[in-house]
Amino acid sequence: MTRLKGIGRHFLGLKGASSAEIGELLDRAAHWDQFPDKVADVLKGRFVVNMFFENSTRTRFSFEIAERRLGAEPLNFSAAESSLAKGETIYDTVRTLESMGADAGVIRLKPVGVLEELADRIRMPLINAGDGHNEHPTQALIDLYTIRKHFGELRGLTVSIIGDIRHSRVARSNLWGLTAMGARVQFCAPPSLQAPELAEHARYVPMEEALKADVVMMLRVQLERHGNGLIGSADEYRREWGLTMERLETMPPHAVVLHPGPVNRNVEIDDGIVEHPRSKIFTQMAHGVPVRMAVIERVLA
Amino acid sequence: MTRLKGIGRHFLGLKGASSAEIGELLDRAAHWDQFPDKVADVLKGRFVVNMFFENSTRTRFSFEIAERRLGAEPLNFSAAESSLAKGETIYDTVRTLESMGADAGVIRLKPVGVLEELADRIRMPLINAGDGHNEHPTQALIDLYTIRKHFGELRGLTVSIIGDIRHSRVARSNLWGLTAMGARVQFCAPPSLQAPELAEHARYVPMEEALKADVVMMLRVQLERHGNGLIGSADEYRREWGLTMERLETMPPHAVVLHPGPVNRNVEIDDGIVEHPRSKIFTQMAHGVPVRMAVIERVLA
Amino acid sequence: MTRLKGIGRHFLGLKGASSAEIGELLDRAAHWDQFPDKVADVLKGRFVVNMFFENSTRTRFSFEIAERRLGAEPLNFSAAESSLAKGETIYDTVRTLESMGADAGVIRLKPVGVLEELADRIRMPLINAGDGHNEHPTQALIDLYTIRKHFGELRGLTVSIIGDIRHSRVARSNLWGLTAMGARVQFCAPPSLQAPELAEHARYVPMEEALKADVVMMLRVQLERHGNGLIGSADEYRREWGLTMERLETMPPHAVVLHPGPVNRNVEIDDGIVEHPRSKIFTQMAHGVPVRMAVIERVLA
Repeated sequence: MTRLKGIGRHFLGLKGASSAEIGELLDRAAHWDQFPDKVADVLKGRFVVNMFFENSTRTRFSFEIAERRLGAEPLNFSAAESSLAKGETIYDTVRTLESMGADAGVIRLKPVGVLEELADRIRMPLINAGDGHNEHPTQALIDLYTIRKHFGELRGLTVSIIGDIRHSRVARSNLWGLTAMGARVQFCAPPSLQAPELAEHARYVPMEEALKADVVMMLRVQLERHGNGLIGSADEYRREWGLTMERLETMPPHAVVLHPGPVNRNVEIDDGIVEHPRSKIFTQMAHGVPVRMAVIERVLA
Repeated sequence: MTRLKGIGRHFLGLKGASSAEIGELLDRAAHWDQFPDKVADVLKGRFVVNMFFENSTRTRFSFEIAERRLGAEPLNFSAAESSLAKGETIYDTVRTLESMGADAGVIRLKPVGVLEELADRIRMPLINAGDGHNEHPTQALIDLYTIRKHFGELRGLTVSIIGDIRHSRVARSNLWGLTAMGARVQFCAPPSLQAPELAEHARYVPMEEALKADVVMMLRVQLERHGNGLIGSADEYRREWGLTMERLETMPPHAVVLHPGPVNRNVEIDDGIVEHPRSKIFTQMAHGVPVRMAVIERVLA
Repeated sequence: MTRLKGIGRHFLGLKGASSAEIGELLDRAAHWDQFPDKVADVLKGRFVVNMFFENSTRTRFSFEIAERRLGAEPLNFSAAESSLAKGETIYDTVRTLESMGADAGVIRLKPVGVLEELADRIRMPLINAGDGHNEHPTQALIDLYTIRKHFGELRGLTVSIIGDIRHSRVARSNLWGLTAMGARVQFCAPPSLQAPELAEHARYVPMEEALKADVVMMLRVQLERHGNGLIGSADEYRREWGLTMERLETMPPHAVVLHPGPVNRNVEIDDGIVEHPRSKIFTQMAHGVPVRMAVIERVLA
């Protein structure tokens, strides 16, 4: 079974998703964002297994809270505690959990391509919670939701994504999602962290220009890339590519700052900006739950 | 308190269990296997603690799903996160969880003998989820259930168990359970992986004969035994003791293949057999939940 | 915001708590201790996140059971599986979980001072589940509850706390709580494990005198302190500072033994005393759940 254009029965990515599909999810997220009760019963008796083959705190908890708020039964699987140590393949693990009665799977994986392959072989719907550096579509939906809630609509906005574009699934999913919704995306990155294959979809701009956008989305820098020459020291990175207080002040007064977290304070973003009035960082986190409720509900509807 | 013959208030093993006791559990598993609702309320407000002093994915999840489907509250304890690092004994851990209000315990342990000892000292019922190489009775019940569901009854069937008999709790529990139900068990194993103490209960047959049985149950081979001379390389093991596609074709047309999982693909079983129409492997996994529901219900009734 | 005298909206410690505040919590614990149903609905739909930045078995499970018995939804976070590996600060983790909708947090931390600082910056109520060697107030409440239940009241009793006072948050919280309730606390410890800053609140007595108290509370000795010269060998420690069977026999007939667990059998306490009729050790564990129910209920009321 080849995946059709559009979101399909799994939720693997925003590439190819239509603005109608995305808009519907954002509307449903808004519904849950305002829902007065903490816990609903819409997915009572449904089991959702959270399979994190790559560690995560925030994403795993955000999904787990979303599942519980929908009345579903979460099951948490992390690779550390798994039979993978005994050489079991990822497919066998997912297939096993499906056989046991899981109704849907939330999955995070490092190697790109495995998720796409799984999606062809697994019957239960799968939700991508981070697929190598390919896509992280629920994070992008959170960002879209946060921006739309702040500005009223996405169409016509300019969004600068700044940092390690090359290895970022967040950048890719935002690129597809924002573009589909009529926003304009531009990248800003050190040459070693640019993604040439995306060049036809978004242009690279220098920092001063990036800071003129309506939305500045900072990406987490992997400090371990320092050793392999992709970035300099943390200080050098901050000086060249970090959102410092000085740079914040050059942004237009209406512009906002996003970051998918977790942040490296005083590396890609200054400590004082994280909870600055113009930062939406903890707002994004709060939106994670209603957005994921909308996605889980969709695949299980 | 010495354990009486039969299953008793704990569920430690199938050795000594009567066909009536086993039959009752299989019937109850059939009830849950066909139960229309995902979640029942029969154990509402009862706490079951899953204590895995040896890691496991499938067994732990299978129990957890079974507990939730019965309406119970699962608590998951794994040794990695425990005070065992601080030198606490297994007994103290189990006794502590009992003191806190656990109503039953599911337990997996490596050292043989500890479970028997715990069972004498702990008041809450304990369910054996893997006891060294002694017994793994819920896995054997799953296998019995799967075979009975396929063939209609167990009496008169011949079951070949192939592989590392010496270290296998699955082989032992199946031996006791299948024999009690009137099936005939035969083993097939390299000399270094035979269990001499079981020779009076089941004879060892060569591979060609083993493949003529109604059921061929392959055991997982521990590849780490390679280094200590118990087995040769993975390739050698496959050639001599693996269920290859060629060997599958020599089996009688009505015969089925079982494996408790996780499988080593292309070692003890060929990749193409795992999801072959004659393989019951993922069916076994699906049966894990209703079988364990029956066992948990029994000890808490 | 500076913390007022008294317990306040968080539950960080017993230092400064009034006897009325403590008495109310103990009364409410008694209510839950006798509550006929296993699960109540008083905190239905409330999320409580258990954040253990330092490992724990018993405390984590005790809180989780308490939360579930109150009908709340527990979320379990342990540092091992966290983004802390990626350099995220403790504050960011707690703030993230709060942003996602946690209604209260149970927190265990090693570095002293961080909890106090968090309490100023985090809006959801925090419950101290172990704060370096500063306080462990729910453990002390359990001890107070156990003693009060046994003797009828706390006022006028003498309690000896024996062992590593210097590094013990249990000793400190018991000192504040017992003193507030009108009991008299005395310490008994090797010179290297005394806490000079507490000398004005409780005097140090020799072992023979310590054993004459109404309550003898043994502390867990950290055997790893052996290497740095703070204690001798386990055998030496037992001989000088352990509660041996011989010493137990010198205690007044009405006196009882407590230990917060986990015990080092035959180091600070003899194996035969752990489940001796005069030991309250597993009773303390049983009381952990109702006491924590009272505390969780209080901060979320």
